[in-house]
Amino acid sequence: MWVTPLIERKREGGALTPQEWRELVAGYTAGQVPDYQMAALLMAVCLNGVEPKELAALTGAMLDSGERLRFDHLGFPCVDKHSTGGVGDKVSLVLAPLVASCGVGVPMIAGRGLGHTGGTVDKLEAIPGFRTDLSSAEVQRQMERLGCVMIAQTATIAPADRKLYALRDATGTVAKAPLIAASIMSKKLAEGISALVLDVKRGAGAFLPELHDGLELARSMIGIGAEYGCRTVALLTAMDRPLGRACGNALETEEAIATLRGEGPADLLEVTLALAVEMVLVAGVAQDAAGARRMVTEALSAGHAVERFRSIVATQGGNPAVVDDPAALPQAREVAVYSAPTGGYVAAVEPRTVGRAIVAMGGGRRTMDEPIDHSVGFVISAKPGDRVEQGEALASVYARDEAGLRVGVEALRKALRIVDEQPAPPLPLISHRVTAEKTEAIPSTAR
Amino acid sequence: MWVTPLIERKREGGALTPQEWRELVAGYTAGQVPDYQMAALLMAVCLNGVEPKELAALTGAMLDSGERLRFDHLGFPCVDKHSTGGVGDKVSLVLAPLVASCGVGVPMIAGRGLGHTGGTVDKLEAIPGFRTDLSSAEVQRQMERLGCVMIAQTATIAPADRKLYALRDATGTVAKAPLIAASIMSKKLAEGISALVLDVKRGAGAFLPELHDGLELARSMIGIGAEYGCRTVALLTAMDRPLGRACGNALETEEAIATLRGEGPADLLEVTLALAVEMVLVAGVAQDAAGARRMVTEALSAGHAVERFRSIVATQGGNPAVVDDPAALPQAREVAVYSAPTGGYVAAVEPRTVGRAIVAMGGGRRTMDEPIDHSVGFVISAKPGDRVEQGEALASVYARDEAGLRVGVEALRKALRIVDEQPAPPLPLISHRVTAEKTEAIPSTAR
Repeated sequence: MWVTPLIERKREGGALTPQEWRELVAGYTAGQVPDYQMAALLMAVCLNGVEPKELAALTGAMLDSGERLRFDHLGFPCVDKHSTGGVGDKVSLVLAPLVASCGVGVPMIAGRGLGHTGGTVDKLEAIPGFRTDLSSAEVQRQMERLGCVMIAQTATIAPADRKLYALRDATGTVAKAPLIAASIMSKKLAEGISALVLDVKRGAGAFLPELHDGLELARSMIGIGAEYGCRTVALLTAMDRPLGRACGNALETEEAIATLRGEGPADLLEVTLALAVEMVLVAGVAQDAAGARRMVTEALSAGHAVERFRSIVATQGGNPAVVDDPAALPQAREVAVYSAPTGGYVAAVEPRTVGRAIVAMGGGRRTMDEPIDHSVGFVISAKPGDRVEQGEALASVYARDEAGLRVGVEALRKALRIVDEQPAPPLPLISHRVTAEKTEAIPSTAR
Repeated sequence: MWVTPLIERKREGGALTPQEWRELVAGYTAGQVPDYQMAALLMAVCLNGVEPKELAALTGAMLDSGERLRFDHLGFPCVDKHSTGGVGDKVSLVLAPLVASCGVGVPMIAGRGLGHTGGTVDKLEAIPGFRTDLSSAEVQRQMERLGCVMIAQTATIAPADRKLYALRDATGTVAKAPLIAASIMSKKLAEGISALVLDVKRGAGAFLPELHDGLELARSMIGIGAEYGCRTVALLTAMDRPLGRACGNALETEEAIATLRGEGPADLLEVTLALAVEMVLVAGVAQDAAGARRMVTEALSAGHAVERFRSIVATQGGNPAVVDDPAALPQAREVAVYSAPTGGYVAAVEPRTVGRAIVAMGGGRRTMDEPIDHSVGFVISAKPGDRVEQGEALASVYARDEAGLRVGVEALRKALRIVDEQPAPPLPLISHRVTAEKTEAIPSTAR
């Protein structure tokens, strides 16, 4: 195929036909369209955008490059949640078993840490023995029995996305809404789900910090979902500070389990419940928002959610003792308390600084195959706006050695700025709800 | 070097430092920066532009990738002309010997045909025996003796441009002013000239048809010239129709020789004289425009220009008999007259249709190493706006076989539309003069 005229058309702001997108993606995946032509095209897409029809065709072509899971025979609806990524975001570990315990299937294909953000797969793998590489037969069996799997992406799901993602990573074409939307949706649509709830992060720790970019991303994904018959709803949530207190794989898994047991931090619980409500609503197992809220809080307080999590862990080869005993998770060799160097107000808990420090301490990857140390990270009790005294404990650092401790302490010094004046309030925890029909700002009283 | 952050900065509309541009171009030429990263960067440059300082640094890096000619010892100023390309544009063949015969050195490194446009090197090679691949020693010797060479680009001049050009050609990043300007200027600055005159084409047959794009290109090149101490002046000339009557290599060479003998078409003569005036002015061998005009018209009418051309042909190995006998040039086997199918007005002589037909008839290249047939082409006597009678001869087709004749006749039918109403006048032959100081629209009385 002659690609140059297509690149020129995108450069001049024109649109490609669905057929042209399909041929391009198929040609690229097959190695017939070279990287340099796709790189030029992707940059033109970044700068000139794509029409909704183009975005749907691009996503469909990526989806069709691989296989799709099927759960039509299960007799219950299947939905999933996707987060655009952040620091301390361990929501999936609580949410998936919680929603599954309400009778909704959750066939979750999750990601690994990327850049400064953590990934659900890495957090699950902090559990000794936990396998995220189930076979298709194992996935089907576990979905029948537990209504939930939590696995890593396989080579057979959207291979075009894997190849395109590596190219985008090398060519500065990652952080733009349409390409992010196509990448996410091509994988989610392969899960065989009838509906999807999105947690679109905003603020300094998000890949797209600006509200308007987050809304554009949400609407792009909702539009693609609509094209493929997958009802999609998005909540915009705060990532100007870490979610919850724990940041780092094993520490986050421990906090997720605490939340399943009713002992988690309020912000993590609130975001998880809001997303769970949306999931049982789009799944059609609750009549209205109030009924959905009752359903998920009862599943949590009655212990159904934590028991479902225990079953998932055990079925996927993990040690179920972690549910009752956090000491069964990997433990950091070195722990230090970080105290306020002066009195004042906490200006911010800067999530990128925290996330990058975890990578530097060995808890994340700089290259794709690096092994990671699940035990390292932070537990940060201070929140933006808190009034603190000099010497007051604000956080703990968990490291594998003295050097790691120093990296962690230095990161906290930068991330937890103390100021004299009370700072402006942080972003609302949940600020907007976006559906195919409308965008609502969520009033603060409902938060 | 880590290229991705540089690509991201250009994507967001930022600027790279001169040092970053130098490292990028050096790394790309050395094969350390992959094609796909450079392709993404070039597309970002196409869509977000570059600052003048960036453009100068990019051009300088391309220039420094190869060797530079030196003529400081010659004792006369050296200048050159560059045309942005068109159909029937044989100006260089007349201009270089004309200006050289006025005591100004012209070390012309010329191009081959590209797309629908012809190239000076191909026209010169229509002369039996003419060599465009002189050695450095031959170039120096001929410059000393004749003050003029007309040669093809060598592998040692701006190799970065050769590699970048091939990438741009495959990635839809050719037709944008800054990259065109950097490509042209990196080669022209390597010629060891103190000044440069540009013939920037506008209209349907130009690579950048729009006036504002042509002006942007002119100003970009003038700005780069200023950074490198090469005084640069541009004329904007019409390429909404072919220049002169002949289109095709040998036919154009014949018309250029006729013009050197004082028997050329008026439009070709006028553009050539206007460019020659600019060249002797920037070379400093004439006091003012009137003196310059006298100087070049006298050199032409006294036969100095045509004799200089004869010496150049002979010294570069060509058959000097072509100067007196057009039959010494390659002759097409098949010739046909094209007559007006109806009476009316000639709406246009569409240059792209004509130029593409020459390529289709074998007179241009579809791939870089294709041999070409110098004999084929057109002589088109009709001009836009002419009143013509049915059956009146408008043009001749020169082809190598019957199939070529049919292609040529069909092209003329499309290119020479006849309409009932008198059409709007074509573009002024020479519309603007651009210098580092100002842009002047040239009044029609001066044309």
